[in-house]
Amino acid sequence: MAAAPVWSVDPRTGKQREQVAVEATAEEVDQAVQAARAAAPALADRAVRAAFLRGAAGLLDEAKDHLVEAADAETALGPVRLTGELARTCFQLRAFADIVDEGAFLGVVIDHPDASASVLRRAAARHGIPEGVVGLVHGFDAGVELVGHPLVAGAGFTGSIRGGRALFDAAAARPVPIPFHGELGSLNPVVVTEAAATERGEEIGGGLAGSMTLGVGQFCVKPGLVLAPEGAGGDRLVKSLTEAVSDTEAGVLLDHRMRDDFVAGVRARAGLRDVSAPVTPGAGGEHTVSAGFFTVPAARLAGGGEHDLLLEECFGPVTVVARYRDDAEITAVLSRLPGNLTATVQLSSDEAAGVSPRGAALIAEVTPLAGRVLVDGWPTGVAVAPAQHHGGPYPATTSTSTSVGGTAIERWLRPVAYQSTPEPLLPPELRDANPLGLPRRVDGRLEH
Amino acid sequence: MAAAPVWSVDPRTGKQREQVAVEATAEEVDQAVQAARAAAPALADRAVRAAFLRGAAGLLDEAKDHLVEAADAETALGPVRLTGELARTCFQLRAFADIVDEGAFLGVVIDHPDASASVLRRAAARHGIPEGVVGLVHGFDAGVELVGHPLVAGAGFTGSIRGGRALFDAAAARPVPIPFHGELGSLNPVVVTEAAATERGEEIGGGLAGSMTLGVGQFCVKPGLVLAPEGAGGDRLVKSLTEAVSDTEAGVLLDHRMRDDFVAGVRARAGLRDVSAPVTPGAGGEHTVSAGFFTVPAARLAGGGEHDLLLEECFGPVTVVARYRDDAEITAVLSRLPGNLTATVQLSSDEAAGVSPRGAALIAEVTPLAGRVLVDGWPTGVAVAPAQHHGGPYPATTSTSTSVGGTAIERWLRPVAYQSTPEPLLPPELRDANPLGLPRRVDGRLEH
Repeated sequence: MAAAPVWSVDPRTGKQREQVAVEATAEEVDQAVQAARAAAPALADRAVRAAFLRGAAGLLDEAKDHLVEAADAETALGPVRLTGELARTCFQLRAFADIVDEGAFLGVVIDHPDASASVLRRAAARHGIPEGVVGLVHGFDAGVELVGHPLVAGAGFTGSIRGGRALFDAAAARPVPIPFHGELGSLNPVVVTEAAATERGEEIGGGLAGSMTLGVGQFCVKPGLVLAPEGAGGDRLVKSLTEAVSDTEAGVLLDHRMRDDFVAGVRARAGLRDVSAPVTPGAGGEHTVSAGFFTVPAARLAGGGEHDLLLEECFGPVTVVARYRDDAEITAVLSRLPGNLTATVQLSSDEAAGVSPRGAALIAEVTPLAGRVLVDGWPTGVAVAPAQHHGGPYPATTSTSTSVGGTAIERWLRPVAYQSTPEPLLPPELRDANPLGLPRRVDGRLEH
Repeated sequence: MAAAPVWSVDPRTGKQREQVAVEATAEEVDQAVQAARAAAPALADRAVRAAFLRGAAGLLDEAKDHLVEAADAETALGPVRLTGELARTCFQLRAFADIVDEGAFLGVVIDHPDASASVLRRAAARHGIPEGVVGLVHGFDAGVELVGHPLVAGAGFTGSIRGGRALFDAAAARPVPIPFHGELGSLNPVVVTEAAATERGEEIGGGLAGSMTLGVGQFCVKPGLVLAPEGAGGDRLVKSLTEAVSDTEAGVLLDHRMRDDFVAGVRARAGLRDVSAPVTPGAGGEHTVSAGFFTVPAARLAGGGEHDLLLEECFGPVTVVARYRDDAEITAVLSRLPGNLTATVQLSSDEAAGVSPRGAALIAEVTPLAGRVLVDGWPTGVAVAPAQHHGGPYPATTSTSTSVGGTAIERWLRPVAYQSTPEPLLPPELRDANPLGLPRRVDGRLEH
C-alpha cells in the first residue's frame, strides 16, 4: 500500500488546507490495534471509564471554539449545526457515563473527526488510560485491514452501501467472524394520506421542504421518497413544497466527491421517463449545490426497471414525490422498498384519532420497513433517549442494535454466565448482597 | 437436486427402519417458507402464541410414550435421556409461553425431530394457526437454500463447524444478510489447579469420567480438554479416571456416520507423538463405541503443529488430559484455544474461598474463552434459567445471544421506535396507561 497523503480540503473552495495524515499501512493498523488493546487493563475499572467519558465531554466543551472553526472549514456545515453536533456529542458521552454508572458494561469504539482525537486522548491520559484507547487510521484498504485484524472483536460503521458492504463482507469472511454494526443508507419513505393532504397539504409541503433541505440534505434520515395523492390536496402539497424549496439558498456539501455524486445522481434521475422537476436540483455556484425535487407517477415505481433508481438514496438536498391514485399504489411502492432507518406517515385528524381505521392500517404497513416510525412529524432530528432506535432492516443497518440512545451499549456486550462460583470469586455485580446496588434479574424477577 | 431419500436408521443395527422423507428441492423449500409466512397473521395475537406453546407442550406430554420409543429406535439415546429431553422441551415451551405472557415479543423457529413435527402442527391447528408455522426440510443443499430464501429473516442452527460455517457464509452473502445464530462446536476446557488435585484428585477423576461419558459423550458441553498437574495429585486424578472409564459400558452413537467419525478421530489422536491412552477409546461391538481418554504433556499443545488436532472437538466419549508442569504452561495452552461454550476450573478449598488468589486469577483467565464459567462443577447439564448463557466466542456460537434460557428470545427480536404516535394508534404495549401491565422503561426509569 502506498503511503498516500490525506488532505483536509475546504469544500467551499475545493482547496487543500493542509495534509493531516497519510493512509495507514497494514503495520500501522496493527500498531493501532495493539495500542488499543494495551488500554484494556486500565479500563477494567468502571468508575475510571465513566470519569473518562465525562472528562472527554468536558474537554470537548472547552475546545468548542477551535473545534467548530476547524470542522466548519473542513465540512462547510456551518457553526450552528456544528455547535449542535458538538453539544450532542458531549451529551451522548455524559449519557453513556451515566449508563456505565448505572451498571451496564461498556466497550467503546468511536470514530471521531480528526480534530477531536487528541482531545479524547488527553481525557484518557488524565484518567491513567493509555492513549491507544482512541485511534484513527485512514484509507479504504486500512478499513478492510482493521476489520480483519485478529484482535478486533467488533466494528461499528456509518457510510455508503458500497463501502459498508465491503467491510461487512470482510468481517463475515474472517476465520473468526465478528459483529459488524453498519449503517449503510436509507430512503426514509413518507406516506401522506389523501385525507391528510386535503386537510393540511400546504403545511405538509412546507414541513417536507424544511426536513429535506436541513443541513443541505446531509442527514441519513432525510426523507427521500414521499407518497402523496393525486388531486387537489396533493397539488397544494407540491405547490407549497415548490415555493419553499425555491426559496432555499444554495449550500456546500461535505466535500467535492459528494458534490460530484449529487450532481450526477440528480441528472440521472431527471432523465427518467415521466419524471418532472418542479424545482431542479443540481450544481449551484462553483462549489455549492441547489436544492430541488422530482415528481413521478407512483405507478412508475411499482414495476421495477430504470425507475428503481428513484428508490435509491441520493445524498444531498433532493427528494422524490410519487403521486398515487389509490391505496393499492401505495402498497405496491412500499413493497418494493429496501430497509430504512425511518418511515413516516402524515395523517388527517380523524385518522390520527383512530376514528378512521386508515391510520392504524398504514402504520402496520410501514412498520416492517423501518426501525423508527413517525406520525405527523419529520425524521430529521434523532433524539438521544433510551427509547430511541436508530437502525432498521438492511441496508439501513446490518444489525438489530441502535447506534443512538442508551441501548447502543448492547453492541459491545458479550454475555457470560458464572455457575456455582463461590461468593468471594464472583464479580461484585453478581454477589448476593448486590454491593453496587445494580438493577438485576434474580431468580427470574427484577430486583432493585 | 435429485430427490434423494431420507431414511430413519437404527444406529444399534445400522439397518434402515423406514423412508421418512426425500431431500427438499428449491421449490419445496420455497413452499415451506411461503407456508410459514402464511402463519404470521394468526400469530399476531400474543395470547394465541402463548396458548400454542402450552398446547404443544401438552400434546408432546401426551405423546410421550410413542415419541420416546420412536426417538430411541432412531438415536439409541435410551429412554432415560430421551424422557428427560422431552420433559426439558416441554418445560422450555412452557417457560417461553410465560415469557410471552410477561410481555416480550416472540418469533419462534425451532428444529425438532421428525416424530414431533406433526404434534406441533396439531397444536398450531388447535389455536387457529396455519400449520406451516412448523416445517421440516431435509438435505444439505436444502439448508443452504433455506438460509438464502428472501423471506427468511433469521436462522438458528446447531451442528458441525463445517456445515454451520457454510450456512453462516450463505446467510452473510445474501443480497440482504440475515442474523445467523449458529452453535458450531466446543472443546469445553477444564483446568484443575495443583492444590485442587492434591486435595481431591480422586473425586475430580471420577466426576470427569461421569461428565465425559454422559450420553455416550454426545453433549455439546462435554469436557474435551482437561489441564491437570504433573505429580502425585494429578496421578491420582488419572488413576481414578482410568478406573471409572474402564468400568463404562460400550454405547451406541446417534448414527453410523458419527461412529465412523469418532473411530477415525480417536485413531488419528492416538497416533500423535507423546500421546498415551490409559483407556483406549474406539470401536466397541459392531455398532457400539468404547469410552477412553488420552494423556499428553501440556507443552505439546502450546506450540502448534500436528498436536493442534487435540484442540479440536471429537464428538463422543473421549477426552484429553494434558499434564502441566507450571501455571505458565496452563496459560500457554489456554491462549491457543478457540471459543467455547463453557470453561471449568477445579479449585482447592482455599482457592475457592478466596484465601489464595489463584482461584480469582484463573477465573479471570478462562472468562474470555467461554460463555459459561463453572467452578468445581461439570459443564454437562445446561439449566433452563433466566441467567443461563448457552453460547460463547466463535466457533462455540456465531452470535452473542444464548440458545437456552429466557433471553434466547432476543435472537428473534427487532426493535422499532414509535415517535409522536397518537395514543389510539400505538400498540397497547406502549400506551400511557400500560393496559397490559408490562415491565417497561419509561423516561429512562424502570416501571412495573
